[in-house]
Amino acid sequence: MKLKVASKILDANDRIAQDNRRIFSDAGVFVINLMSSPGAGKTSLLEKTIAGLKKSLDIGVIEGDITGTDDAERINRLGVPVVQINTGGACHLDANMINVVLPDLPLDELDLLVIENVGNLVCPAEFKVGEDVKIMILSIAEGHDKPLKYPLMFQESTALIINKIDLRPFLDVDVDKIRKDALSLNPSIKIFELSCKTGEGVDQWIAWLQTLNS
Amino acid sequence: MKLKVASKILDANDRIAQDNRRIFSDAGVFVINLMSSPGAGKTSLLEKTIAGLKKSLDIGVIEGDITGTDDAERINRLGVPVVQINTGGACHLDANMINVVLPDLPLDELDLLVIENVGNLVCPAEFKVGEDVKIMILSIAEGHDKPLKYPLMFQESTALIINKIDLRPFLDVDVDKIRKDALSLNPSIKIFELSCKTGEGVDQWIAWLQTLNS
Repeated sequence: MKLKVASKILDANDRIAQDNRRIFSDAGVFVINLMSSPGAGKTSLLEKTIAGLKKSLDIGVIEGDITGTDDAERINRLGVPVVQINTGGACHLDANMINVVLPDLPLDELDLLVIENVGNLVCPAEFKVGEDVKIMILSIAEGHDKPLKYPLMFQESTALIINKIDLRPFLDVDVDKIRKDALSLNPSIKIFELSCKTGEGVDQWIAWLQTLNS
Repeated sequence: MKLKVASKILDANDRIAQDNRRIFSDAGVFVINLMSSPGAGKTSLLEKTIAGLKKSLDIGVIEGDITGTDDAERINRLGVPVVQINTGGACHLDANMINVVLPDLPLDELDLLVIENVGNLVCPAEFKVGEDVKIMILSIAEGHDKPLKYPLMFQESTALIINKIDLRPFLDVDVDKIRKDALSLNPSIKIFELSCKTGEGVDQWIAWLQTLNS
């Protein structure tokens, strides 16, 4: 019974996600669903990405949080259009939440829309929102056991960004194991190692993003 | 419609949680529901806590993970009874999952049972499992904005353990803000700062835990 309800909800979500996909496609905007645990660096990566791409691409952002507007304010300071969704408790965005806020974004003027999901390594991976690609971030401070413990997001993501590599000397973390286990779950996943704090590795990520969007 | 289903599920969960509470109480075992984001240090804290308390208390552990047995194997090496629950996708433990595995634990011989929840800063706080107290961990690498962005777990927890303080010199993190915001959400929350890696601060946590259990 519980499964039946859950599957109905997922079916309904998929239909709305398809509607969103069509709207994005008609507007010519490429859409990323950006996911991670709390505090892995989604908003920091967005700040770096916007700084690096703002001259060549028109970028918009949807911020997903349970409550508050901190992240939208951070993005707003960079002068790009941003909408904040507060889920009011829900641990992930869904297609309908996105659908409802689309009129608040100048989609026809955008090349790239990044949807920053709620910080959660589990549920966001289960709900399509109409994105072209899912991209995930893992902070190395979370440890090297995460791919095998939370496999779905690694399986669903086109790219894995391993963030906070400036902390590597101070952690007992095996980054090669993260790579190996992520690739075992998803052999085509593209992996970047970078630090949003120092900027190391950010250029390679941005260069790849430009190839995706072209 | 969706809300109605969710509320029925929560009601059913609360009833089973009450059953669990009665079983724990009859067996004279104090139960902690341990929660955090992925990689904040739940299993590491458990290892330190078991090492510090094993001589004075009989401890048992229930490990909750989506998949795998890594954490149960870590605990098993310490010679305490442990049961692994694999949720198979679900992002939190619920009361029934706990109820089902209780016969596999020597409850009458235990003083303390720690239930390590799935790594998730959102959903575990919504589901009682029959615990005496909820205790949460936040790694300082997650950043100081977490209490206000994920308030429920801070509101529900009796204690907040701020872990990985050995990384403080290498992070732009305001630990005082974490404290202030956590206390604004939950004025009676007990806060510990510690490092499971260096052991700093672990003694104070263990001393407090002993007062709880006595």
